[in-house]
Amino acid sequence: MLEAVSESEVLASNEAFYDAFNSRDMDAMDRLWAKLAPVVCLHPGSTALHGRTQVIRSWQSILGSDGAPRVSVEGPRVVMLGETAMVLCYERVTDPDTGTGAVLAATNVFVREGGEWRLVHHHSSAIGRIVADEQEPHSHLGRPKTLN
Amino acid sequence: MLEAVSESEVLASNEAFYDAFNSRDMDAMDRLWAKLAPVVCLHPGSTALHGRTQVIRSWQSILGSDGAPRVSVEGPRVVMLGETAMVLCYERVTDPDTGTGAVLAATNVFVREGGEWRLVHHHSSAIGRIVADEQEPHSHLGRPKTLN
Repeated sequence: MLEAVSESEVLASNEAFYDAFNSRDMDAMDRLWAKLAPVVCLHPGSTALHGRTQVIRSWQSILGSDGAPRVSVEGPRVVMLGETAMVLCYERVTDPDTGTGAVLAATNVFVREGGEWRLVHHHSSAIGRIVADEQEPHSHLGRPKTLN
Repeated sequence: MLEAVSESEVLASNEAFYDAFNSRDMDAMDRLWAKLAPVVCLHPGSTALHGRTQVIRSWQSILGSDGAPRVSVEGPRVVMLGETAMVLCYERVTDPDTGTGAVLAATNVFVREGGEWRLVHHHSSAIGRIVADEQEPHSHLGRPKTLN
């Protein structure tokens, strides 16, 4: 029962992460990353960012850019590892104007800090493309759940 | 001091993982994955594998295939999260015949189980290509360390 509660809390933090992305809310994004534990990040196609300063700066750049895409999350699944938790999910990243974009697979790692599940790592990488006029481009991904 | 010891142990398990890959040693690969904690895996460009059976089966397929590439590891860095640890590193994956291949960024997550650091997650994704006759294709990756 305790584990089930933790899982729903972790999923809520995972949702809050993507909500912060879509609403371009840098304050919320900052609060979601751990302050005591070490943090790292692997953006798609990029080398690793180590440390909170580098990671937060990268999100400031992404959220502050014009034409930042919209992300919807599909099939999030939690893996509990005691005081650490991982969420594996798919990100459907689309250009709102064209509907084209990409599907990415993501690993989000959380630790419990100050009573909240906070991010210590985000690794996301492309696994497919979304082309215009595609109706059900990735229905094979399993347990789809569009959060946005 | 305790953390430094743990970091070197985690790095040793990370090296053992790539050694098992390069020597096609499925027994060693099997031993390296956790038996009690839940395990997952995100191979490059693929959807997520959940559970030990699926993950081990994928490694049997990879290690058993003809012409499996060779992997060398660069710049491994450990992130300690108490009883969980992450290693972020780069994988230089090359075809031994042609020297061509790809550079991938990897997240390897370990938990302590039976006195050993065992894998619970491997997520690897391409960040660049290696073309023939390239001398120093990725010297910008930071702290390079060729293990093989």
